[in-house]
Amino acid sequence: MIYFDNAATTPLDPEVIEVMSSVMKNNFGNPSSIHTYGREARVLIEDARKTVSSLLNVSPSEIFFTSCGTEAINMVLLGCIENIGIKNIITSPIEHHAVLHTLEHFSHAGKCNVHYVKLDSRGNIDQDDLEAKLNLSDRSLVCLMHANNEIGNLLPVKDIGELSKKYNSLFLCDTVQTMGKFRNNPGNMNIHFAACSAHKFNGPKGVGFLYMNGDMKIDPLLYGGGQERTMRSGTENIYGIVGLSKAFEIAHGNMDADILYIKGLKEYMVSSLKSIISDIAFNGDSEEKGLHTILNVSFPRTDKSEMLLYSLDIEGIAASGGSACSSGSISESHVLKAIGADMNRPAIRFSFSKFNTKAEVDECITVLKKVM
Amino acid sequence: MIYFDNAATTPLDPEVIEVMSSVMKNNFGNPSSIHTYGREARVLIEDARKTVSSLLNVSPSEIFFTSCGTEAINMVLLGCIENIGIKNIITSPIEHHAVLHTLEHFSHAGKCNVHYVKLDSRGNIDQDDLEAKLNLSDRSLVCLMHANNEIGNLLPVKDIGELSKKYNSLFLCDTVQTMGKFRNNPGNMNIHFAACSAHKFNGPKGVGFLYMNGDMKIDPLLYGGGQERTMRSGTENIYGIVGLSKAFEIAHGNMDADILYIKGLKEYMVSSLKSIISDIAFNGDSEEKGLHTILNVSFPRTDKSEMLLYSLDIEGIAASGGSACSSGSISESHVLKAIGADMNRPAIRFSFSKFNTKAEVDECITVLKKVM
Repeated sequence: MIYFDNAATTPLDPEVIEVMSSVMKNNFGNPSSIHTYGREARVLIEDARKTVSSLLNVSPSEIFFTSCGTEAINMVLLGCIENIGIKNIITSPIEHHAVLHTLEHFSHAGKCNVHYVKLDSRGNIDQDDLEAKLNLSDRSLVCLMHANNEIGNLLPVKDIGELSKKYNSLFLCDTVQTMGKFRNNPGNMNIHFAACSAHKFNGPKGVGFLYMNGDMKIDPLLYGGGQERTMRSGTENIYGIVGLSKAFEIAHGNMDADILYIKGLKEYMVSSLKSIISDIAFNGDSEEKGLHTILNVSFPRTDKSEMLLYSLDIEGIAASGGSACSSGSISESHVLKAIGADMNRPAIRFSFSKFNTKAEVDECITVLKKVM
Repeated sequence: MIYFDNAATTPLDPEVIEVMSSVMKNNFGNPSSIHTYGREARVLIEDARKTVSSLLNVSPSEIFFTSCGTEAINMVLLGCIENIGIKNIITSPIEHHAVLHTLEHFSHAGKCNVHYVKLDSRGNIDQDDLEAKLNLSDRSLVCLMHANNEIGNLLPVKDIGELSKKYNSLFLCDTVQTMGKFRNNPGNMNIHFAACSAHKFNGPKGVGFLYMNGDMKIDPLLYGGGQERTMRSGTENIYGIVGLSKAFEIAHGNMDADILYIKGLKEYMVSSLKSIISDIAFNGDSEEKGLHTILNVSFPRTDKSEMLLYSLDIEGIAASGGSACSSGSISESHVLKAIGADMNRPAIRFSFSKFNTKAEVDECITVLKKVM
């Protein structure tokens, strides 16, 4: 089997499994307990927090472990509305559902006004339109993703941070697809909030974190025992947190080489695809500029093309039609629709990791020739 | 080291580690993906749901996996207030902070009225007072824990369920301490909502579930990809869910024998303590009736007694002062205070599991003689 769906989730790094297994066997204490078992567990969590914060160049007090990226995003959106008094939220139609569905919920409840910034045909933000929308309110929340999970477009984070600052606004950057892939530095980019999900960079599922700038103050989403300095109650997922930290460390350690390697795979895939299919299109920025891990391809429509994704699966190649973070992702991609892609053509997202090889690309091309 | 703090958290069962390790190695797909990797992950989750629901005699559609018991409780309380329109919530002063702090938050926000039912000096619910409080509203939410996590008192669940029903009210039973310890049967007890946390019965941290009666309809706490039939967005913690299911299965398989064995340990601890200390008191129902795993002891006040918990830790015995589910649990126990225990005497909660032995009780008694 060939796994080309790394934007949906990634296999655990063997080193991550190793540290998690060791913690599962040896460190079971409740970090809130004051005895030896508890203190040992507490040290593991605070060490993980230090590792993560140091790699992001932020303070450990700005990192809050959560159960996933979705939780981090929900927490920020609720807090900005309920505690900071944000009424105006500017986002885009191609954000992840963790943002879009949450905003729809709050907007339907009459708690905020949501503005969708204009995009060009490649899916990039129209900064003039963003500025016009920032002008609508004394203080807005800008909520945009660093890398789009379907088409890989990269946000000009520095520009957006500066624009937000100019209009006294807050900036939630959904960094779920880029944490562990770039040396993110939220403290220097006018980013107030950023979200992370460990399973996107060969870490475990069930754990993520929220970066929150030290000047921000919001209420928690979960109340109870007061864990995470009262910001996230619930006994800590120790193995998950340690696994996240280890995966984050590995990702940063090999980052430059990994980027080059994965970029090479993507370029090889692009040229190989072009060599066998003339009528091919690459959605968004994914062909050249976007995130190195993501390639979104529109294939020609044929009598077999509707079954393309299934045919690939049957032939042992796992790729994705749209986002795979939505339950039952058979449904039409809201991202491709929003950028005006030709929805009559079958689109497939191939997403790569350091564990993929050129031989796998070759095999995929062979299969495509067969099933197209 | 001797671990007598199993109400705070429990070591992972080796069999649970084994299945989790296998899933970590072999099943990394995103359950929302439609390809083979995704479908394999989906099967694991749905099998876990079937295992859990069948052991509880409820429908799989009534089980929603969450990141912890705290999340399940927060979700229900918010939903009952916002979606079902509950204004009157009846709870007790000795509930877990996941209930009390969440209710304080909603009550301060003016979203509900919270009534605290009277307790007798052992910490048991005054059912006449509960009935009087149920009479205050057309429809209340009764929110009471099945077993108290500090003093082990057991709620007469059947009576409370019937009383709730008589007054057209809903019943959230915090079963975090009893899931995996008794054959809970929420469908037959007029329980509308019940919470579970896997790490309380030798399962993993970072995962739990909500039982919600099929007739109930509340909004999710987390919006996004629509996982858990739209009730809990966020990529599923597959290893955690499989680990929970395995631990739940093991707990039910050996339940009768485990109860007898642990009860025996507790009785042995009681008689051993009585044999060395004349001025000893057992808080709540823990000496005789309460949950088999929990024994809450008030020791005589001596010049060394303030350091008792630390002294035990130094001598290799892990026990707890209050609840260990609160960050920095050095603080005074709200439970002991509420039942009018003598707060001048040092109180220690010993909580047992199937992995403890009589030899450990003997060792603990030897240490107590030394450090008292």
